[in-house]
Amino acid sequence: MTTTQKTMTVKEVANRLIEMCRKGQILEAQQELFSEDVTSTEPAHAPMPFAKDKTAVLEKGKGFASMIEQQHSVYFSDPIFGGNYFSITCKLDATMKGQGRMVLEEICVFGVKDGEIISEQFFY
Amino acid sequence: MTTTQKTMTVKEVANRLIEMCRKGQILEAQQELFSEDVTSTEPAHAPMPFAKDKTAVLEKGKGFASMIEQQHSVYFSDPIFGGNYFSITCKLDATMKGQGRMVLEEICVFGVKDGEIISEQFFY
Repeated sequence: MTTTQKTMTVKEVANRLIEMCRKGQILEAQQELFSEDVTSTEPAHAPMPFAKDKTAVLEKGKGFASMIEQQHSVYFSDPIFGGNYFSITCKLDATMKGQGRMVLEEICVFGVKDGEIISEQFFY
Repeated sequence: MTTTQKTMTVKEVANRLIEMCRKGQILEAQQELFSEDVTSTEPAHAPMPFAKDKTAVLEKGKGFASMIEQQHSVYFSDPIFGGNYFSITCKLDATMKGQGRMVLEEICVFGVKDGEIISEQFFY
């Protein structure tokens, strides 16, 4: 028996990512959709460094999640599309450990290749 | 007589940029809205280099415009917003000098400070 798996389009990848993120399944979405070679780029001023490869990027995600003491609300916009890239807005209202309550807003840009996310970059 | 000029919000800057781009006034929009210190970042694979400061970024824009033999259609999406950044999709159907007709699609992310655009980055 042969199983044929169709490669997801950029729109399908984006919709799946946002669907899972809106359910709070961010780490599961990364596990499912990220390429082994994914890169993650933060702003120059960010304490989080550049990360390359799925293991490192997932560790970075877990590291950020572990800094959240209490999540008050989170918002993910619908995506906009340009070629092999899509962009969303993310807004997080959370109490961060040792830092108090804050609202974090950012633009996220994801690159897609062969049905997998190969890059993410954040602007804030 | 004193003239008080209100600093534009990120939304006002974005809406003005898109309004002018949709009228074909891209270079005029850059002239009006870009900071003297603006930076322009292309993908690593792009022939266009990184540019810094308004004069260099406007030259880059003029250089790209001069490569267009015939513009068939252009589309700018509505923006999405995250903090001091906004993102749009741009789609250009054009015949480029010596390269034939092609459709260029990209995600553009702009950073805003004090009512001016201080950074642009393109993903394609």
